[in-house]
Amino acid sequence: MRLTYDQITRELTRVLVKSGMAQDAAAESAGLFADNTLDGIASHGVNRFPRVISYLEKGYIDLAAKPSKVASLGALEKWDGNLGMGNLNARFCMNRAMELAGEYGIGAVALRNTNHWMRGGAYGWQAAEAGYVGICWTNTQPNMPAWGAMDRRIGNNPFIVGLPRREGPVVLDAALAQYSYGKIEEALYAGRQLPYPGGYNEAGELTTDPAEIMKTWRVIPIGFWKGSGMSIVLDLLAAVLAEGNSTYDIGQLSDDEYALSQVFISIDIRRATSEAYAEKLMNDAIADIKASVPVSDEAAIMYPGERALRTRRQNSEHGIDVEESVWSTITAM
Amino acid sequence: MRLTYDQITRELTRVLVKSGMAQDAAAESAGLFADNTLDGIASHGVNRFPRVISYLEKGYIDLAAKPSKVASLGALEKWDGNLGMGNLNARFCMNRAMELAGEYGIGAVALRNTNHWMRGGAYGWQAAEAGYVGICWTNTQPNMPAWGAMDRRIGNNPFIVGLPRREGPVVLDAALAQYSYGKIEEALYAGRQLPYPGGYNEAGELTTDPAEIMKTWRVIPIGFWKGSGMSIVLDLLAAVLAEGNSTYDIGQLSDDEYALSQVFISIDIRRATSEAYAEKLMNDAIADIKASVPVSDEAAIMYPGERALRTRRQNSEHGIDVEESVWSTITAM
Repeated sequence: MRLTYDQITRELTRVLVKSGMAQDAAAESAGLFADNTLDGIASHGVNRFPRVISYLEKGYIDLAAKPSKVASLGALEKWDGNLGMGNLNARFCMNRAMELAGEYGIGAVALRNTNHWMRGGAYGWQAAEAGYVGICWTNTQPNMPAWGAMDRRIGNNPFIVGLPRREGPVVLDAALAQYSYGKIEEALYAGRQLPYPGGYNEAGELTTDPAEIMKTWRVIPIGFWKGSGMSIVLDLLAAVLAEGNSTYDIGQLSDDEYALSQVFISIDIRRATSEAYAEKLMNDAIADIKASVPVSDEAAIMYPGERALRTRRQNSEHGIDVEESVWSTITAM
Repeated sequence: MRLTYDQITRELTRVLVKSGMAQDAAAESAGLFADNTLDGIASHGVNRFPRVISYLEKGYIDLAAKPSKVASLGALEKWDGNLGMGNLNARFCMNRAMELAGEYGIGAVALRNTNHWMRGGAYGWQAAEAGYVGICWTNTQPNMPAWGAMDRRIGNNPFIVGLPRREGPVVLDAALAQYSYGKIEEALYAGRQLPYPGGYNEAGELTTDPAEIMKTWRVIPIGFWKGSGMSIVLDLLAAVLAEGNSTYDIGQLSDDEYALSQVFISIDIRRATSEAYAEKLMNDAIADIKASVPVSDEAAIMYPGERALRTRRQNSEHGIDVEESVWSTITAM
């Protein structure tokens, strides 16, 4: 079924308010779920919403909590998320990092005790659409084996970098697993193989078969040992800087995912570099990349953020495709 | 042959001074080449030294140049490398980022018109050994196809994150290609296959055969489309922030690699978080990761930086293994 952005926002706001959230906060959080759905990331939009409500019922998310400042070193601040709504905490902290960048050129916020931010890219878009650079990452519960390991002890820790650009921001949003659990499940339900190996089978061989990967959950990091190392260092940096939980600590708390550590860095790039220089440089580079010789007639050579923007425009025009079963779950709440 | 750290430093210093570099700068630069060799990264240590001398003879590197400040926004500064020696410029800028971090909590330097920094990890180690977080990356000449492309138009843009830790810093040093050109050539000369696919053959299939990859040079980014996106956004951010060259611009200059853009970010983590908290958190997390169930008896489950430190200790004790042909080239200079 196709819904408008406003229909989605209104309905999610209703459920959040009914669950006990203040009207303003509910509308802002609902808007973030709707944004992700609009951009084609329903997995962290409406599809994820029922699980968030269940976390709320389990007591992991404190709907009334607001982030509080723990320490300031000038351009660097440490905040406690007080287990409030993850997307609101993240949006608040990227905004605070932008304020610090406005003052110091660069600013950073380390955030502890927060909840799942849903789609990390949202905060890269937030900064880029405001004319700032946004860099952020989160740790997660243990969901991926370290390189050389069978069992899952590191996180897929999404890493986001966003840059403002008039024709469309450049926004990378890359989790450090080759495929998300969602993508692997999606391939299984669709009876498809993954396009490239996504994990190991029980015989210890790389496989594109989602059913085989789901037997071991031995998913692979991007670049094998490289993504494993990237996951470890980003986790440790976020947890140490925020004086929060590491992926290991999160795994000790429960089998669910809460009390995460995140980092938000922003740069006031408009003050650092003239927009004319930046636009020409980015446009020339992107034009060159897009002029590559494609590997096939179907190959799309894209810059990061291009697909989300295209999807956003299509969905704005034609309505947002939402699974009926998901929508009826939400409307019944 | 096995050489001491001092032997390597003395000999490289001699060649740099003979080439026209001031004694102090030569000794510092030679020390960085020796450090990389000591840590087991000879590809960006002594093995690369003759090419650096050839770049100097071609006029790409100005041995007398020092970096100059272009602009300051407080915690963020823009510097011009004036085409000076790449490793000295990088070391200087990480040091400057650390000074800014000391003042503001976080500090950043964008550097343009610099030369190859050799081993990016060196600057992560530099920050970590001084008790700071160091994050840095560089762009490169076009050396990798974007995802979906046949021809090389993006860079492998190494990304480095270093954290201080008493038992041994955690330092990630990850180029965004699955394998470096050096590793592919090494496998070819050794008559070995790569352990995992590193690129495409002429039929457009992923292959572990170095000879097949060298026919196309269609090397793969880490995580396929993910590393491609990461390369693009890190390149654009470095070039825009430094008002320097993008990978595209670098490719327009020549077939060689110079006039690069780099970013150095540092965080004064010792002021942000107590060392006791940081040490316990990192040690617990690393102990947990290393306690993973290994995939085989030979599997080594490592944290980033662990191997370099081990190699450094072994080489410090037993001498540094240097290829005789490389050494005789250098001593003949």
